[in-house]
Amino acid sequence: MSPARPALIAGDHRWSFAELDRRAGRVARRLAARGVAAGNRVAVLLRNGPQFVAVTHALSKLGAVMVPMNIRLAGCELAAQLKEVGAAALIHDRATAARAEDAAHGMPDLWRAGVDDREGCDEPIDETATPAPTAEKAMPRCACLRLSAVQGIFFTSATSGRAKGVRLTFGNHWWSAVGSALNLGLLPDDRWLACMPLYHVGGMAILWRSVIYGIPAVVHESFDPEMVNRDIDTAGVTLVSVVPVMLQRLLDARGQRPFPPTLRCLLLGGAPAPQPLLEACLRIGAPVAPTYGLTEAASQVATLAPEDAGRKFGSVGGPLFPSELRIGGPRRAAPAGEVGEILVRGPTVMLGYAGRRAETARALRGGWLHTGDLGYIDGDGYLYVVDRRDDLIVSGGENVYPAEVERVLEEHPGIEEAGVIRMRSAVWGQTVGAVVKVRVGMQLSEHEIRAFCAQRLAGYKVPRHVWFTDALPRTAAGKLSRRSLRERIEGIAEKEDQTSSGH
Amino acid sequence: MSPARPALIAGDHRWSFAELDRRAGRVARRLAARGVAAGNRVAVLLRNGPQFVAVTHALSKLGAVMVPMNIRLAGCELAAQLKEVGAAALIHDRATAARAEDAAHGMPDLWRAGVDDREGCDEPIDETATPAPTAEKAMPRCACLRLSAVQGIFFTSATSGRAKGVRLTFGNHWWSAVGSALNLGLLPDDRWLACMPLYHVGGMAILWRSVIYGIPAVVHESFDPEMVNRDIDTAGVTLVSVVPVMLQRLLDARGQRPFPPTLRCLLLGGAPAPQPLLEACLRIGAPVAPTYGLTEAASQVATLAPEDAGRKFGSVGGPLFPSELRIGGPRRAAPAGEVGEILVRGPTVMLGYAGRRAETARALRGGWLHTGDLGYIDGDGYLYVVDRRDDLIVSGGENVYPAEVERVLEEHPGIEEAGVIRMRSAVWGQTVGAVVKVRVGMQLSEHEIRAFCAQRLAGYKVPRHVWFTDALPRTAAGKLSRRSLRERIEGIAEKEDQTSSGH
Repeated sequence: MSPARPALIAGDHRWSFAELDRRAGRVARRLAARGVAAGNRVAVLLRNGPQFVAVTHALSKLGAVMVPMNIRLAGCELAAQLKEVGAAALIHDRATAARAEDAAHGMPDLWRAGVDDREGCDEPIDETATPAPTAEKAMPRCACLRLSAVQGIFFTSATSGRAKGVRLTFGNHWWSAVGSALNLGLLPDDRWLACMPLYHVGGMAILWRSVIYGIPAVVHESFDPEMVNRDIDTAGVTLVSVVPVMLQRLLDARGQRPFPPTLRCLLLGGAPAPQPLLEACLRIGAPVAPTYGLTEAASQVATLAPEDAGRKFGSVGGPLFPSELRIGGPRRAAPAGEVGEILVRGPTVMLGYAGRRAETARALRGGWLHTGDLGYIDGDGYLYVVDRRDDLIVSGGENVYPAEVERVLEEHPGIEEAGVIRMRSAVWGQTVGAVVKVRVGMQLSEHEIRAFCAQRLAGYKVPRHVWFTDALPRTAAGKLSRRSLRERIEGIAEKEDQTSSGH
Repeated sequence: MSPARPALIAGDHRWSFAELDRRAGRVARRLAARGVAAGNRVAVLLRNGPQFVAVTHALSKLGAVMVPMNIRLAGCELAAQLKEVGAAALIHDRATAARAEDAAHGMPDLWRAGVDDREGCDEPIDETATPAPTAEKAMPRCACLRLSAVQGIFFTSATSGRAKGVRLTFGNHWWSAVGSALNLGLLPDDRWLACMPLYHVGGMAILWRSVIYGIPAVVHESFDPEMVNRDIDTAGVTLVSVVPVMLQRLLDARGQRPFPPTLRCLLLGGAPAPQPLLEACLRIGAPVAPTYGLTEAASQVATLAPEDAGRKFGSVGGPLFPSELRIGGPRRAAPAGEVGEILVRGPTVMLGYAGRRAETARALRGGWLHTGDLGYIDGDGYLYVVDRRDDLIVSGGENVYPAEVERVLEEHPGIEEAGVIRMRSAVWGQTVGAVVKVRVGMQLSEHEIRAFCAQRLAGYKVPRHVWFTDALPRTAAGKLSRRSLRERIEGIAEKEDQTSSGH
């Protein structure tokens, strides 16, 4: 019942819910006229912007399944995903047109359509064929009452293995939005800033919260710390979703300028939060809320309230109502404090992976989503994420969590960021390797770094080798890609010193 | 994740969620020790207070079905309800003990238990038989994850016909609470005052919102306008649920004192709001939100946001997300503006009436709840409630809505409240009768009242007869009981002047 309230703020575009509904209806009618129908999988290769939002709601009006694609992928990677889901159509914009053509090469049945980003999806394609508006009264806020219907297929950012398409329903988004509102509260003047890609679940979740809460989404085309700070300071943004690298850049750009009281929450997800970053937030009173989430559970699963930031440092909080968290297996919950795989159960958990029955069954066995992440839950029910299970290094029978070693490395004042991976070792099975980016103007030797670690870590956790780099590979969501890192230094790792000792 | 936050404020009792959980667990163990088990229907005859809240959550821990009973009913009326639902136990307090005994007379299998209201349900009954606490980690906020399970059976306030027991699930309460939060917002410091009976769905809904939102319920034993005003002014109450007579008394008691900005919303339901009351609220800036709701849909169905109070005067707003409203029938929606029966569809609609298959089927035919209320929806989707269908007066083929005539009568400065009912008429089939309460110190004749109405209403709507009374019959929820009114003047109505003309 809020058709006149703002729904979307993106650059110069300011759409009310009624306007969003009208725009989405227009796109839907055009797509329908071109044959897009309920159940079709429609790939969307669009930059953040109003047309992305209009297309999202247009597809849900049609009952079509949205397949948002990562605009940073190469044509051949896109082609593989288009084939994997059997896309019926591919929607692109001016900037992604060439890549779309490239990706669709050899797929003559794939219908492509461009939407115009100047006008926010108003490219005049066969206007004459537009069918008459339906007699049904338009629902200004959200037409997603069929909660069990699939809204979209979201490719995981694939930090390990081949990207899988996660099937999420309207109900998954609904429960995620509701759980978040019950956790963070919901103010009439809330506005949520999306400066991360909308094609990832963390960005998409903001669009659904907007229509479910009746609040505007503020959409930035890309992440620009100055722009984000400006909108926090002057545009009444109350909530922002960020990944750690973004938050660090936000803080760097602000200098000593405090956040205004209108900013309620910096929702921090996508990757484990480095300790110095959390400390900096505590120091300046930034209302940071570290979260744990994943595509397979429609984003946020657990969130630490800003008020608990000091008391439960390093935790990602408890599960969002009514989701459940468990460490261990579907039959047995690990005792408090014990590290094990993080399991999730509840209405935000995906239907499964598109076209991958065996992987779906494995991920959802026993009624719990097996996240592949390792963590523990303390006596008060707060979750601490330790690492990806796939990235675990087992060295001489001892578990080494790369994130722990990275945390220590990043405590060194000369190291800007670090990635830790396993290397094969004839002696220990696996040993620890590190890749670091040294701060501009600093000089550091491998020896110094290893000595720094040796004072802070058990011997078997100290990196055997340290490589230097100018940039660590990250996914579009800002997550360190240890798989890329492993591939990058695979050749070098072969030369692993098999005689090293001191385990 | 808020065990230390306040859950309940009632008199001197201040319970955190952890404390509420502990108290509820204690009551649950005692009841279990006495044989109360999952699926049992347990009648609860308690005044508003902490013990009511503890018992509510104790029963949901046990999986027992709560049957809250109206403490104003006579023993024989209670007995009928106990038999109707097949209650296994009856829980009472000191004040209701005699009535409980009375009601249970002739039911030797009905186990009765008293809870102590001094200590908030800590009466020491067979402490030694208390089983060991379960190993399951207690869930501080709400254990109601089985959304499809029946939470309680709520007797309708029976403004017409025999009271029916409405079966509501945890899911009904959950969706109701979520829809309300999405409509009114949810602030971290919210606290919701319950000054209406908790045994009615309007009061019970506050208890569920409390545990679902993680905010305190402030519970008053009974409605005292001074106490309510005091808690609004000094105890940080942000939301209050009231019926129109309560709100009128609140305003009368305040005089010219404005409401503090901390008060976000006076949720006004239970009965149609008289126009002068809404006007008074507008005048003083009281944040009133008229609602439409009913037991069969777990309280609120539609609510008018305070910001729309001026623009959509007299409306009860739009449906709470994701419920749907319709005027007409399950197959056909009436056009905007046309009066018809109000239908409701969505996840807050009851399972059905306990033990009344035919009435359930009739109420839920075609997948829509048939409310028995008449109303219309305007072109913007806002609902206006016209009257109860059962109270409709059809006079010479013309529809007369008693509420409309009552509204006109109550516009007369000398009339404090009015009730309008149908009378049998040999000439017109039915005609209009009115019962009015004249303000203290005023004098009014039947002739004056009819003349007043004749200037404002079509002839067939003008009451043929006006009776005077000191008090109109109202239900515990403050709703005018036209049925009682009809019964009261039934004898007199026989004397109906069959020669009256001027229709």
